[in-house]
Amino acid sequence: MSRKLNISLAQLNWLVGDIEGNCDRMLQVVSEQAPNTDIVMFSELSLTGYPPEDLIFRADFEDRCLVQLDRLQKASQETAIIVGHPWYEGDDIYNALSFFYQGKLHARYFKQELPNYGVFDEPRYFTADEKTCVVEFKGYQLGLLICEDIWYDEPVDAVKGAGAEILLTINASPYDINKEHIRTDLLVDHCKRTHMPIVYLNQVGGQDELVFDGGSKIIANKGKQTFKLEEFKEQVITVQFDELALVSEGSVFIENDPVAQVYQALVMSTRDYINKNGFNGAILGLSGGIDSGLTVAIAVDAIGKEHVQAVMMPFRYTSEMSIHDAKEQADLLGVEFDIVSIEPMFDAFMAQLTPMFEGTAVDTTEENLQARCRAVILMAMSNKRRRLVLTTSNKSESAVGYSTLYGDMAGGFDVLKDVPKTLVFELAKYRNTISPAIPQRVIDRPPSAELAPGQLDQDSLPPYDVLDALLEGYVEKDLSVNDLIKLGFDKDVVRKVVRLVDINEYKRRQAPVGPRITMRNFGKDRRYPITSGFGRKNWS
Amino acid sequence: MSRKLNISLAQLNWLVGDIEGNCDRMLQVVSEQAPNTDIVMFSELSLTGYPPEDLIFRADFEDRCLVQLDRLQKASQETAIIVGHPWYEGDDIYNALSFFYQGKLHARYFKQELPNYGVFDEPRYFTADEKTCVVEFKGYQLGLLICEDIWYDEPVDAVKGAGAEILLTINASPYDINKEHIRTDLLVDHCKRTHMPIVYLNQVGGQDELVFDGGSKIIANKGKQTFKLEEFKEQVITVQFDELALVSEGSVFIENDPVAQVYQALVMSTRDYINKNGFNGAILGLSGGIDSGLTVAIAVDAIGKEHVQAVMMPFRYTSEMSIHDAKEQADLLGVEFDIVSIEPMFDAFMAQLTPMFEGTAVDTTEENLQARCRAVILMAMSNKRRRLVLTTSNKSESAVGYSTLYGDMAGGFDVLKDVPKTLVFELAKYRNTISPAIPQRVIDRPPSAELAPGQLDQDSLPPYDVLDALLEGYVEKDLSVNDLIKLGFDKDVVRKVVRLVDINEYKRRQAPVGPRITMRNFGKDRRYPITSGFGRKNWS
Repeated sequence: MSRKLNISLAQLNWLVGDIEGNCDRMLQVVSEQAPNTDIVMFSELSLTGYPPEDLIFRADFEDRCLVQLDRLQKASQETAIIVGHPWYEGDDIYNALSFFYQGKLHARYFKQELPNYGVFDEPRYFTADEKTCVVEFKGYQLGLLICEDIWYDEPVDAVKGAGAEILLTINASPYDINKEHIRTDLLVDHCKRTHMPIVYLNQVGGQDELVFDGGSKIIANKGKQTFKLEEFKEQVITVQFDELALVSEGSVFIENDPVAQVYQALVMSTRDYINKNGFNGAILGLSGGIDSGLTVAIAVDAIGKEHVQAVMMPFRYTSEMSIHDAKEQADLLGVEFDIVSIEPMFDAFMAQLTPMFEGTAVDTTEENLQARCRAVILMAMSNKRRRLVLTTSNKSESAVGYSTLYGDMAGGFDVLKDVPKTLVFELAKYRNTISPAIPQRVIDRPPSAELAPGQLDQDSLPPYDVLDALLEGYVEKDLSVNDLIKLGFDKDVVRKVVRLVDINEYKRRQAPVGPRITMRNFGKDRRYPITSGFGRKNWS
Repeated sequence: MSRKLNISLAQLNWLVGDIEGNCDRMLQVVSEQAPNTDIVMFSELSLTGYPPEDLIFRADFEDRCLVQLDRLQKASQETAIIVGHPWYEGDDIYNALSFFYQGKLHARYFKQELPNYGVFDEPRYFTADEKTCVVEFKGYQLGLLICEDIWYDEPVDAVKGAGAEILLTINASPYDINKEHIRTDLLVDHCKRTHMPIVYLNQVGGQDELVFDGGSKIIANKGKQTFKLEEFKEQVITVQFDELALVSEGSVFIENDPVAQVYQALVMSTRDYINKNGFNGAILGLSGGIDSGLTVAIAVDAIGKEHVQAVMMPFRYTSEMSIHDAKEQADLLGVEFDIVSIEPMFDAFMAQLTPMFEGTAVDTTEENLQARCRAVILMAMSNKRRRLVLTTSNKSESAVGYSTLYGDMAGGFDVLKDVPKTLVFELAKYRNTISPAIPQRVIDRPPSAELAPGQLDQDSLPPYDVLDALLEGYVEKDLSVNDLIKLGFDKDVVRKVVRLVDINEYKRRQAPVGPRITMRNFGKDRRYPITSGFGRKNWS
């Protein structure tokens, strides 16, 4: 009789810190959603959510984990359970995997490779172990690894060397626009090299700036057979191995359009930030421009039009076109829409400030004042109705500080924070292919902050295609001023943009979080000092 | 003839990233400030400033370090130079010490122990080495170590074992209220155990949230002899060893009053943040309360009265006493003082908002609106004159969210960010022992935000001595709700305070930086997720 093994991949969305709630969900999956299976797999640190950050140092955190682990162990009588959780031993904490079966601990594995780059700080929390773990189960030799382990050949080769026939790996691997492709190539390479089928489980969901895309998958038959779960969606899927062949009911392996993926990432992370933090809905300023136009569409897709409120806050420099387009879009999406002029507040501030400004010229102070009046309005409405203020700064603006602190930067979640302006345009066009959501004129008109008469972004910034290419070089690839000039960028433009990026670190430090979708966001990925003399040499 | 060795300790204030400027300063010290010496010591990563954070990953950062290291090497003809700097080898970066002499590299040492807790992230940047370094110089065997190395016995014993007679250690050790005492005990213990004299060099200055206190010292004669440089002050001091005995010109070893130390730390970090970031001065709202009263005194001590501007922004709930006391303090300190009523702006906002608030009760929305009107005023004045807005939230308020985001939290530097309210009182009293700076009534009156008629902090918060003790337990010691109740705190008070701390993480994430003076600040020390289900179990 040939060996058979049913494995259930629980690709779920956990709440960080909700140890009891996460465990309840696991028990429900085991008892209801995964019938006739041999093993249910839950993802890396699924018990606590990923990443728990400094919560992990708390003694009460450990205590609560132990209580819930005990429940999981007891629930493993019929079905084996693989779960990721922290494990405390003396002064060490391990990023652990427990394999429970028949109410007993069948195996426990500690992660060997701890990422300490980009958004990751695992060595702050965990001790790396060195022991390979292969466990016998239902006649199979199963190799067990956790996330970063599989980004190196050694741990994979070590489980193979220790006799593993199938590799099971649990992950909490954040999304970025290039990641899915890289992950698949990596797994196919391992499978080709070792001939082990690989069962790769990832989580989904938004956690502050991180987005997890899921895309759990099985790679078998020397890389030729693949089975993939959906992206950005909770799924519990059971697959069967017959000997080492994967018996899959049709592969759902689809290479998604990268722009569509980014859109899904933004929707999921916005929904999760709002819902996991218990807001009643979202509110945002709608200016008639493309950033707020895209943001309101994402908000509606995330939480439904009945929970989204848009406010147009015109001033003397606001064009009729902007008011018209904002209203048109609000009607199109069916969201609550108000128009609140900021003229009286602006005038009241200026009346008080003018005596103190005597002898000074008009400058960006007056522009910032407009943005800050709008922020006060939105925050008041947010406070009154417990709706989250969404901000609409994109990555290009955040980079060069083209935004007002405590003005348009005021809010709890910046949906486009990591989206360069050129990608904002692509996302808007993509969204309109699903259904009309953003008026065409909002996409087509030249971007303007409308903080001064006839103002256009291009008056003070290079064209966005140039700016985004430059920023990719300076911010994401760490290129120097000389490198950038050698690449053909204009010397003065380079110096100007680099200076703006450098001097605006203080603004970014007080910016709201927003979903990370590139390989280097303004957040955990890029940790620059505010006080710094590094750039000054480059500015002139 | 007995051996003699002159060592100069350059306890200086570096600017992070200003590699050329820091090197210029070093060369000036070598040529002018340290005559008749054998070695000049500069502190850990002094070439780049500490901590350079992700700047260190840039290729142009490496290039610029190499150019300046070459200058230092060439300048070491007569006098040996010990300097801390990053060193790049293939994929590895080391936290290095170079010992230059006679224009050559005499020794290079790589740090062995890399801190990865609290505010430190060194393993993100550096590779740890394992090699002990003892170098012969002028007939002495000198052991070389860097900062964290000396917090463990092994590296110290290893240099002793390798023949070192004197231990030289370069440091970038941030201040906290307990640190100086712990450091001295540590060094005395090493000296007693190994019988090596220890030369401990630390830097001074503020760098974003970190403050370095200096307090460089020499511990000799089995711990019985100590010589200490001043705290919070740049100094270049030359000491002489005759054989292994320290020939010091009188010890300046003084145990400072901890409150006085904190005050100096706040003054230095405020001065450095303003000056290193190129602001023209500071501006703040003066409310007649103790937090702004202490902050304005610190600002004056940091940058001088002519660079400090105070604004009283009264509203209908502001008492006459507050206006009087604010004016009295401004006169006392001699700072520019303006009174700007927020009534017209508040009324203009309410006129626009009232239709939308129909059917809702008055709540904190209206209080926040007052605070936000004040922020808009201060930011406009800041923008116009390039003066930094100082915020005045203390640690107790930051902990429980007793402050308005984009309101009194709006500003670039929060001087009291890590100072519990009970310590605010002590600091105010201490400051007045130097000269009159804060009117006694400002210290004595019961704290009030004056955002509602007759409002007192104690109406919504427990008394500050209780609150601060509770916060120390929950925030700094990670005690659980049960632990706190067992310590005798009232159950309902514990639950209320813990809930407030938990739900206000989003506010703290957008707060300005401020000087760290405790062992766990709200900043790099305590990295909690915003989205978290951990606390909910504790709140009721």
